[in-house]
Amino acid sequence: MPENYKLTYFNMKGMGEPARLIFAYAGVEYEDNRIERPDWPALKKNFPWGQLPVLQVGDRILSQSNAICRYLGQKFNLNGRDDWESAKIDELADALADFRKEIMTIHGDSAEKDETKKAALTANFIGNTVPRFFGNMESAIAKNGDSPYLVGKNLTWVDLQMAHFLDMFDAMIPNVLDTFPKLRKLKQNVFKIPSIAQWIEKRPKTAF
Amino acid sequence: MPENYKLTYFNMKGMGEPARLIFAYAGVEYEDNRIERPDWPALKKNFPWGQLPVLQVGDRILSQSNAICRYLGQKFNLNGRDDWESAKIDELADALADFRKEIMTIHGDSAEKDETKKAALTANFIGNTVPRFFGNMESAIAKNGDSPYLVGKNLTWVDLQMAHFLDMFDAMIPNVLDTFPKLRKLKQNVFKIPSIAQWIEKRPKTAF
Repeated sequence: MPENYKLTYFNMKGMGEPARLIFAYAGVEYEDNRIERPDWPALKKNFPWGQLPVLQVGDRILSQSNAICRYLGQKFNLNGRDDWESAKIDELADALADFRKEIMTIHGDSAEKDETKKAALTANFIGNTVPRFFGNMESAIAKNGDSPYLVGKNLTWVDLQMAHFLDMFDAMIPNVLDTFPKLRKLKQNVFKIPSIAQWIEKRPKTAF
Repeated sequence: MPENYKLTYFNMKGMGEPARLIFAYAGVEYEDNRIERPDWPALKKNFPWGQLPVLQVGDRILSQSNAICRYLGQKFNLNGRDDWESAKIDELADALADFRKEIMTIHGDSAEKDETKKAALTANFIGNTVPRFFGNMESAIAKNGDSPYLVGKNLTWVDLQMAHFLDMFDAMIPNVLDTFPKLRKLKQNVFKIPSIAQWIEKRPKTAF
């Protein structure tokens, strides 16, 4: 009997979209449950960690976006072909999470308010973090020879996560990817996969 | 042929200790490579992400503490008995990482400097984050009936990680665990496992 999947997240792409991309790629049915921001304060207490996304599988519940992606990746054959590849996927996903957190210190609602501190954080981000992050991701792809993916010869869940992230990042800071052609290519490759392209065509239109 | 493992971290417990506890529990030989802080600036460029811990397995290299623990846990039969248990381990490990990051906003070198903001962060931490975090961890243990562990019936890598974290946390804020007896018991259970007790006896003595 097929599993009964329900993904709950806000009505936006954000941290919920990578799991939706996995479902789309795998062609697996799920309930795409979207919470509107004004409804969240009343609903928050129903979720054990008070945060989203959350995946329900039957009557069981799983939190944490990377744990959700890894679980679905494992189920749908997107978690690497051996333990080492799975570990490298995890490394890149956690590096991406760190990178995203650093962006939030200089961008958006939770950014540093002190202008002097923010200038220093921004200078470090542009001068050190960006070249290291994107450079390491390019190197990861380069290691795989003809394969355009981050880990090994096949698409994995971290490619879907990265393609989505690059799409958001590219909209925010448009020129950075010009220097990292393998990553731009990764994004293009992922978005032209027919099942992914179909999902992007039909998904609810949201800014973020 | 056995793998050649080398774990590089600072000469402290910190984020490297959970991997060392896994090696100790599994009874697997590895090189416990410790870098002294003054040597780090010159060595940093040799590490792809400029951060530690790093695990070398033969000539391959893996970063990110949770990716390292998960990989070793998978190798040494400490990663749950099925995909769901592995996913719950991941959820708790990522929740612990979030909790640790929140501590750092109010404690230590990177804590908020503005006293008013720090007071607000501290009030939220004590009033909301602490009861939810420890409460959820207690509930996780309670779900397993007679088993004293966080996920399923057997010890997993997140128990080792949590026991180490609780040991550090208990030293920092001594009374919190009084209200969470299952977690105190978890810590005690882990630290009395003979292979773990032996490691703690013989490991280099460091404050953190």
